[in-house]
Amino acid sequence: MKNDHQKEIQNWKTLKSREIFKTPYLNLTEDLVRTPGGKEIKYAYYGKGVKTVGIIPVLKDKKIPLIYQFRYPHKKYSWDLPGGKVDDGEIPKEAAKRELKEEMNIDATRFILLGKFATSPGSNALVSHIFLALDSRISNDRDDEVYDDTEFIQEMKLFTLEEIMAMVKKGEIYNAQTVLCLLLYKEYLSGK
Amino acid sequence: MKNDHQKEIQNWKTLKSREIFKTPYLNLTEDLVRTPGGKEIKYAYYGKGVKTVGIIPVLKDKKIPLIYQFRYPHKKYSWDLPGGKVDDGEIPKEAAKRELKEEMNIDATRFILLGKFATSPGSNALVSHIFLALDSRISNDRDDEVYDDTEFIQEMKLFTLEEIMAMVKKGEIYNAQTVLCLLLYKEYLSGK
Repeated sequence: MKNDHQKEIQNWKTLKSREIFKTPYLNLTEDLVRTPGGKEIKYAYYGKGVKTVGIIPVLKDKKIPLIYQFRYPHKKYSWDLPGGKVDDGEIPKEAAKRELKEEMNIDATRFILLGKFATSPGSNALVSHIFLALDSRISNDRDDEVYDDTEFIQEMKLFTLEEIMAMVKKGEIYNAQTVLCLLLYKEYLSGK
Repeated sequence: MKNDHQKEIQNWKTLKSREIFKTPYLNLTEDLVRTPGGKEIKYAYYGKGVKTVGIIPVLKDKKIPLIYQFRYPHKKYSWDLPGGKVDDGEIPKEAAKRELKEEMNIDATRFILLGKFATSPGSNALVSHIFLALDSRISNDRDDEVYDDTEFIQEMKLFTLEEIMAMVKKGEIYNAQTVLCLLLYKEYLSGK
């Protein structure tokens, strides 16, 4: 059955591909596609070529830092784990290290890949790499805040995993990737 | 601190909003926004007004059905839990019931809301409602397959939770929402 499917993939033909919209934060592509059944369809999707990272930093005392940031599309704040795009020329682990420093002023050297996931595979080509950084420590040497323009980060606080799971239940944490990171971390702990 | 943030939200002003692209499957919006600091910025995001559902159906013998479907943006197949958009006039629970029937020919009446999550809150307004359907049963009365054009569903199979978690570890299941559903179900089981 799987072999049939592999053959079928070869029978999906991208006839045309055009970029409809692009900013540093998102891109939209529309392809003209011939399906294995011979039908020609238009298929629009986001995130062509985009990789992101999500990081769950754990400090020495097991506390987890979260950032409180304004999420314009939802017109509300959320408590989130850090994350962001992998830049051109970067490998995901380097991006994780950089984002952790930029967003939280946290240094870490050991990054454990918990998984690679498609955020929304039907409409988005984006792949997110989820890292655990167990040796995280807050640095004292922040110079300037180097936040991206659209991130609107307001504050950072430390929480226990139990406090955070209670915030998920109350809906104070509603970012799917943050919740996925937390549950993968719980899986990691239970498998140790 | 929270009160300050509430006040700040009022100081985010949407000056203009225009739809850049729209299909039945996705939409893209660009707003002109005045930030609390008085700066005018463009903010593009997708999924304005969109709600979706994700469902984890559990059969009487505790088996979980997955569907094998082609994910064009990733040029590969994935094993997924069912899900889809909430139609106009529908409540999320009705959409969960409908999608479960359409994608898997499964009937269920008891839907337990495990949470509401923002798929990608920085760039997507979409909110996904995750439901557990413990009383799921496969119906014998399938007439015609009523799949959406872009879903490309190929087959359905039943798995144990243990088999599924092994597929997640191997990367055979890579849809973030499917993995989130599974881990929320594990949380639900451990809290019982």
